[in-house]
Amino acid sequence: MGRRPAAPNILLLLMDDMGWGDLGVYGEPSRETPNLDRMAAEGMLFPNFYSANPLCSPSRAALLTGRLPIRNGFYTTNAHARNAYTPQEIVGGIPDSEQLLPELLKKAGYVSKIVGKWHLGHRPQFHPLKHGFDEWFGSPNCHFGPYDNKARPNIPVYRDWEMVGRYYEEFPINLKTGEANLTQIYLQEALDFIKRQARHHPFFLYWAVDATHAPVYASKPFLGTSQRGRYGDAVREIDDSVGKMLELLHDLHVADNTFVFFTSDNGAALISAPEQAGSNGPFLCGKQTTFEGGMREPALAWWPGHIAAGQVSHQLGSIMDLFTTSLALAGLTPPRDRAIDGLNLLPALLQGWLMDRPVFYYRGDTLMATTLGQHKAHFWTWTNSWENFRQGIDFCPGQNVSGVTTHSLEDHTKLPLIFHLGRDPGERFPLSGGRCLFRCMLAILEMIENGEKASSLQTSSEPGTTAPWTLDSQHRKLRPSRHLVELCNRIFVKTKGIQTLHVFALEF
Amino acid sequence: MGRRPAAPNILLLLMDDMGWGDLGVYGEPSRETPNLDRMAAEGMLFPNFYSANPLCSPSRAALLTGRLPIRNGFYTTNAHARNAYTPQEIVGGIPDSEQLLPELLKKAGYVSKIVGKWHLGHRPQFHPLKHGFDEWFGSPNCHFGPYDNKARPNIPVYRDWEMVGRYYEEFPINLKTGEANLTQIYLQEALDFIKRQARHHPFFLYWAVDATHAPVYASKPFLGTSQRGRYGDAVREIDDSVGKMLELLHDLHVADNTFVFFTSDNGAALISAPEQAGSNGPFLCGKQTTFEGGMREPALAWWPGHIAAGQVSHQLGSIMDLFTTSLALAGLTPPRDRAIDGLNLLPALLQGWLMDRPVFYYRGDTLMATTLGQHKAHFWTWTNSWENFRQGIDFCPGQNVSGVTTHSLEDHTKLPLIFHLGRDPGERFPLSGGRCLFRCMLAILEMIENGEKASSLQTSSEPGTTAPWTLDSQHRKLRPSRHLVELCNRIFVKTKGIQTLHVFALEF
Repeated sequence: MGRRPAAPNILLLLMDDMGWGDLGVYGEPSRETPNLDRMAAEGMLFPNFYSANPLCSPSRAALLTGRLPIRNGFYTTNAHARNAYTPQEIVGGIPDSEQLLPELLKKAGYVSKIVGKWHLGHRPQFHPLKHGFDEWFGSPNCHFGPYDNKARPNIPVYRDWEMVGRYYEEFPINLKTGEANLTQIYLQEALDFIKRQARHHPFFLYWAVDATHAPVYASKPFLGTSQRGRYGDAVREIDDSVGKMLELLHDLHVADNTFVFFTSDNGAALISAPEQAGSNGPFLCGKQTTFEGGMREPALAWWPGHIAAGQVSHQLGSIMDLFTTSLALAGLTPPRDRAIDGLNLLPALLQGWLMDRPVFYYRGDTLMATTLGQHKAHFWTWTNSWENFRQGIDFCPGQNVSGVTTHSLEDHTKLPLIFHLGRDPGERFPLSGGRCLFRCMLAILEMIENGEKASSLQTSSEPGTTAPWTLDSQHRKLRPSRHLVELCNRIFVKTKGIQTLHVFALEF
Repeated sequence: MGRRPAAPNILLLLMDDMGWGDLGVYGEPSRETPNLDRMAAEGMLFPNFYSANPLCSPSRAALLTGRLPIRNGFYTTNAHARNAYTPQEIVGGIPDSEQLLPELLKKAGYVSKIVGKWHLGHRPQFHPLKHGFDEWFGSPNCHFGPYDNKARPNIPVYRDWEMVGRYYEEFPINLKTGEANLTQIYLQEALDFIKRQARHHPFFLYWAVDATHAPVYASKPFLGTSQRGRYGDAVREIDDSVGKMLELLHDLHVADNTFVFFTSDNGAALISAPEQAGSNGPFLCGKQTTFEGGMREPALAWWPGHIAAGQVSHQLGSIMDLFTTSLALAGLTPPRDRAIDGLNLLPALLQGWLMDRPVFYYRGDTLMATTLGQHKAHFWTWTNSWENFRQGIDFCPGQNVSGVTTHSLEDHTKLPLIFHLGRDPGERFPLSGGRCLFRCMLAILEMIENGEKASSLQTSSEPGTTAPWTLDSQHRKLRPSRHLVELCNRIFVKTKGIQTLHVFALEF
């Protein structure tokens, strides 16, 4: 089969609630992910890759739009710093005004399929085939249930336009044993699509499986095979599936023409630990929070013959970059009529570049924290409410950093809590000298806010008012300029001989 | 150069206070250990490898004797559950009655050298050259100081019998900048010895560097080069040194005739975090404690042409195994007149065997915990005293597991706290059903105690009395028998299809 000189196929493997520490190559002690570890060894590993939100729906919306949830609508204004998602009670979904990746890829002749969880709205107008996908096998929502099928029906499963059954009915999940055949079905859907498309148009396959989201499941051959319990069984089945997909790409001789990226929508859901949750490795807290455990993700890029094997990139990456990078692969440019938050990662992937960029950690409509280089500043801290916590809901089990893992929403906008993520990846030791650093952060954020004054730091928690630091679609691309780097370097002494270039590689 | 068919050279690389999570291959996010990561890729990685004590002296004594500190004398009886070590105020050291690895290796013609920290006593009778080593360059103690040189002199540095200087004097350490040239000196000592010996007798080189022990240091070319601060600089220099040693073995064509093992004496000293401490990855607490963070260690085996590349072994390993394994490599058997706790790991290293064995976690004279298969039982929990804790000494910064990370010594001997280390490596979720599991643990420990009754569970904290569960030199080899496995399997339902065989692979 001849090699197409033009746009490569794109395969995005998006995990559900999988944590940074869940793969062997990220240090999981049981080391049960040989296929993903091999994928890393054959490609590039990102230790500093982030979701756009610590919850499923907004993170997925950000991936497909290249935009922060605060821009694409996946946030709430009915409470301060609350994440938003789309269970079946919610009538909202992805706005028609958003341009999704598969819509844009059509211009370059791509055929697109989503396999698995959509999560961007379940009403007819939000159907994935109305937003650029050509095919769908999966579900609009999480596989919670079983429900009563009267007031609350079980979650439907679709093949394209057709509803072909429901979880716990045509698609059984045994909550007691954890047995479900869904990952095998999703694998077969992927393999069939790849086989069909590989010889014709370039394809975009978005493989959004959900076996690692509670209630966690695996098929019979994998149940009981992990040292990590049922969660590990689910991971092993996904690992095996990824191995089969990469093998098929080789067999079809399209491996060097297929860009594959593996990541997760948010950190491990420690609220479901230990039986039904993964690991966030050395990081603090998990899903729902804006600590590293909530938003730092495993991330592997694989493209034989293009991405050199055995590389680690310290590029700060974001799930939103997959939007911009995919467009670049297709020879397309992002829409110019709106702000796009995703970077084109190809310079990092192909030439080993490190690009200055911030990471924003939102919770709902509130910018909770920002990372620049090695430094992370928390403007607000919160895990969950005392009320929930006293009922046994714990987003940070076994972890307790005084003044950091707070159970009330604490305002640090006047003097942010600042951590050095290289020296203190667990966010345990707030830096002294915060005021000095904060001046620099302020300067950066002022620029990002496109000229708005630092006085905008004042906050209000009244519903409906604009939250501090939130960015609307009028704002420019969120990248600090060289001017800013120089500014910071004037304020601080730069670290000598640091291997990688960071805006904020500072000694203090 | 011809290949010796007989005993290979042995190179033990022992780190000081380095944690399980400090190498890239163990998931350290900055990934700054390319040489050690390559060593792992070319050899075998052990995710479940343990020191014999969470403190330096007893751990090192256990390595060189193959025996638990409770047997070789490296424990105290003047307080309950206190670790013992040998600062210069202490007149004790390794007893003459102990047979050290280099003494025994002499019988097979080995020439032995220790480079770096000895830590088994500083008085003349404890000198390493009186205990089997042929050469020494290094120090009897930690590089604390500078002292006043009147009542308390600075720590001496020896070349063989001769005291050649002192830390902070002839061997400067700049506490302010962190600059010291010691790792370079230790590297050169190692390279010179390897070059000299490689063509003659087989050698045993014990490379016990201490740059990662507070006060942490690195030489000028490495200072400021890490994303992790000064601690990371020290790690990078050691990583670079290991690379140079392995390269030399290749250059001398003795790589396939040299067994190399890398590990650490105890977990990262979180008390010195964040500036001068490493990472214990996902594990609980650190040095001084018997939680996983205190005793689980990075461990890499490398022996090209013998140990196949790219392997992970789930064998429960111990630093004491290096004694027995080294003897086996030399064609020697361990002494028969005393109990030896180290296993011969060669079946695991060369044939991929998994051998049933317990791991004992002692603190001083007290058996705090035991791991069997995937299960760990705590008989006592303690981090440090309330008095110390209130003064800011914290062995578990940012971690707090209610009822587990206790600041008083809590007695669980009647009903141990049991964790599943595969599902819950962070020891955050004590298992329910503890009583049932405990019956099985009891049976095992009864056997280990060589017929002693379970009633020995009763405890006493009076000084001088025998602590519960401590083992003296009259006891047999600490391995549960097949009979025991069958016993446990009768009590519990065995996990189906588990990949690796464990005594305690139980479902509950």
